[in-house]
Amino acid sequence: MSKLPNIGTSIFTVMSKMATEHGAINLSQGFPNFPVDSLLTDIVTQLAKENVHQYLPMAGYPPLLSNIALLVKKSYRRIILPEIEILITAGATQAIFTTIQALVETDDEVIILDPSYDCYEAPVLLCNATPVRVSLNDDYTPNWDTIAKACSANTKMIIINNPHNPTGKILTQSDFEALESILKKYPKIIVLSDEVYEYITFEEKHISAHTRINLLNRCVMVSSFGKSFHVTGWKVGYLVAPEHLMNEIKKVHQFLVFSVNSLCQVAISEYLDVVSIEGIGILYQEKRDHFRELLKTSRFELLPCEGTYFQVASYAAISNENDVDFCKRLITEYGVAAIPISSFYENGKDLHLIRFCFAKDNATLEEAAKRLCKI
Amino acid sequence: MSKLPNIGTSIFTVMSKMATEHGAINLSQGFPNFPVDSLLTDIVTQLAKENVHQYLPMAGYPPLLSNIALLVKKSYRRIILPEIEILITAGATQAIFTTIQALVETDDEVIILDPSYDCYEAPVLLCNATPVRVSLNDDYTPNWDTIAKACSANTKMIIINNPHNPTGKILTQSDFEALESILKKYPKIIVLSDEVYEYITFEEKHISAHTRINLLNRCVMVSSFGKSFHVTGWKVGYLVAPEHLMNEIKKVHQFLVFSVNSLCQVAISEYLDVVSIEGIGILYQEKRDHFRELLKTSRFELLPCEGTYFQVASYAAISNENDVDFCKRLITEYGVAAIPISSFYENGKDLHLIRFCFAKDNATLEEAAKRLCKI
Ligand SMILES: CSCCC(=O)C(=O)O
Ligand SMILES: CSCCC(=O)C(=O)O
Repeated sequence: MSKLPNIGTSIFTVMSKMATEHGAINLSQGFPNFPVDSLLTDIVTQLAKENVHQYLPMAGYPPLLSNIALLVKKSYRRIILPEIEILITAGATQAIFTTIQALVETDDEVIILDPSYDCYEAPVLLCNATPVRVSLNDDYTPNWDTIAKACSANTKMIIINNPHNPTGKILTQSDFEALESILKKYPKIIVLSDEVYEYITFEEKHISAHTRINLLNRCVMVSSFGKSFHVTGWKVGYLVAPEHLMNEIKKVHQFLVFSVNSLCQVAISEYLDVVSIEGIGILYQEKRDHFRELLKTSRFELLPCEGTYFQVASYAAISNENDVDFCKRLITEYGVAAIPISSFYENGKDLHLIRFCFAKDNATLEEAAKRLCKI
Repeated sequence: MSKLPNIGTSIFTVMSKMATEHGAINLSQGFPNFPVDSLLTDIVTQLAKENVHQYLPMAGYPPLLSNIALLVKKSYRRIILPEIEILITAGATQAIFTTIQALVETDDEVIILDPSYDCYEAPVLLCNATPVRVSLNDDYTPNWDTIAKACSANTKMIIINNPHNPTGKILTQSDFEALESILKKYPKIIVLSDEVYEYITFEEKHISAHTRINLLNRCVMVSSFGKSFHVTGWKVGYLVAPEHLMNEIKKVHQFLVFSVNSLCQVAISEYLDVVSIEGIGILYQEKRDHFRELLKTSRFELLPCEGTYFQVASYAAISNENDVDFCKRLITEYGVAAIPISSFYENGKDLHLIRFCFAKDNATLEEAAKRLCKI
């Protein structure tokens, strides 16, 4: 007997493993392949010699909490209390799992948009709660009417992901207004806002959920230094929540992981003293534009990409295979790994779409594009 | 409404914070204050320059898994399959939480011995399961008769902690025989064996639960490199479990944290290539003996200490205060922080006992003892 009978190995693990086995260029799982800023690695080198190897406080390294509050102030002009409203987590996944465990109870319903990133469902199921999937519109904007219809007195949480993985969509002012008018009717609902790509947006400005006056008291925002500083393996993320929710989240956090890697927390804090995080949007905008340009002569049709480091592409003009088979053949025959978009849908809906990660150095993107243009 | 209404801030956080505020010598929360082996920090320094900053595979860095299998073979002469029976976790706390979430269901009962370390109860409650507390004997050995009486068809798990925090007791061959004869009657029960101090034992040899032929198919063993290599802040632990249990644990792990800090995983793996872990028992035995010797002229009565880096002491000859008040006064008046043993009991049983952590350099132990001898 399994508590999660329908959960298998995550698609990111499956595709990364297959990419490695076949020596393919890995544009599947989202992680950068270029070197980390040497300023940051120099800090680590220096710190390794000092004694930053023991437990830090449960909520996080105090200077890091302060630096996040400064970052939030600078990015969004919102003042938050570092020791009360910020929690450092072992990556955004842990932040999301912990928040759901702390706030969702048996028989609650949790609204998850479809398609969506794959880590929201399991923690809801482990709470004996019910994930309620609501389809996005065909252009991947949320359909607030269907979301409103899916809400009831049993709804405890709506999970949003902004910028959205895999589609790169970002939420607009009017999306937030629509969300807020739903919430007005349901005072119990909390918004869990996965914003791990908050600093990776392009033409449009990112709106962070916790900066909305109508949400700040009922929203948990999750972010990730792994994404913002190209260190996905460090597993340092954080969440921002109002005190009454944070108290519950910390109760779970202290017995789920207790504290987060000291060396990397201190390193990120010192790095935040000297760098500006905003440059990362420009870096990835250039990569997006370069990758799209390179694929112009291919038979892939590229969907719009407003944020994240993912590019969704249709292969409908190339093949009629299902997207998992197409991805496998892409690895074995063409040496490029991608993620089938069907894996983000509850029911595996197959629209002949796949996702490429463009967080790669230019040589990698160029070689991948060369291969993709041959198809 | 709280899912964990009776859970407050962990005593380790409370006491460490108070120690810092009063500039007291911190013998409360368990962590070493001496420098980490420079061989290990040199490895980190070297690695920081290489690109070990992205996600490692979900189960852990493959060479680290292999090295753990080698360590297990060397320590216990048991062969385990690295990729199937070992999982790297963000510390032992995450291993314990994840195991309980994966295996314990609504209305199951979980036996927790009393006194015990404080991280077992919350994950059981979050599963809507019932923690069943069974008192240890007065000498802190398990009372297998009362444990047997507490077992029923509803019992899903027995949690043992060997060596035991806070009492330093280790389980004997006959303890395991008694446990195994209980398990024979209840085929459903799984043993969760918290062995984070497995390499910190003194006169008696440690018996690891997963090496018992009658347990290996129904036991999850948890260990911690934080304890074994003096890097509690790295948050790298692991668990060993048979494949059928591991499959369930991995399902939760991949959506709870996905993967563990890459830099520290690779560093520990390379360190295991060159060091022997066994020296650590000798190091701490010397510290234990030194600390006990230093306290000989004090009015504290020292209980036996067979393992861990904790020394329990009675202050009954000094004061009649409850142990929390005594610990607070120890900080404010004498400048030494310890942990009140009542905090390890479900009902706060106060036997006028406190716990000192002796994982400190000799100068610290000597200064602390000087202060303690004045009382
Ligand atoms: C945690 S592995 C998946 C990484 C990621 O965020 C993605 O590829 O979408
Ligand atoms: C996770 S903080 C507590 C450290 C510890 O293991 C102890 O002091 O018992």
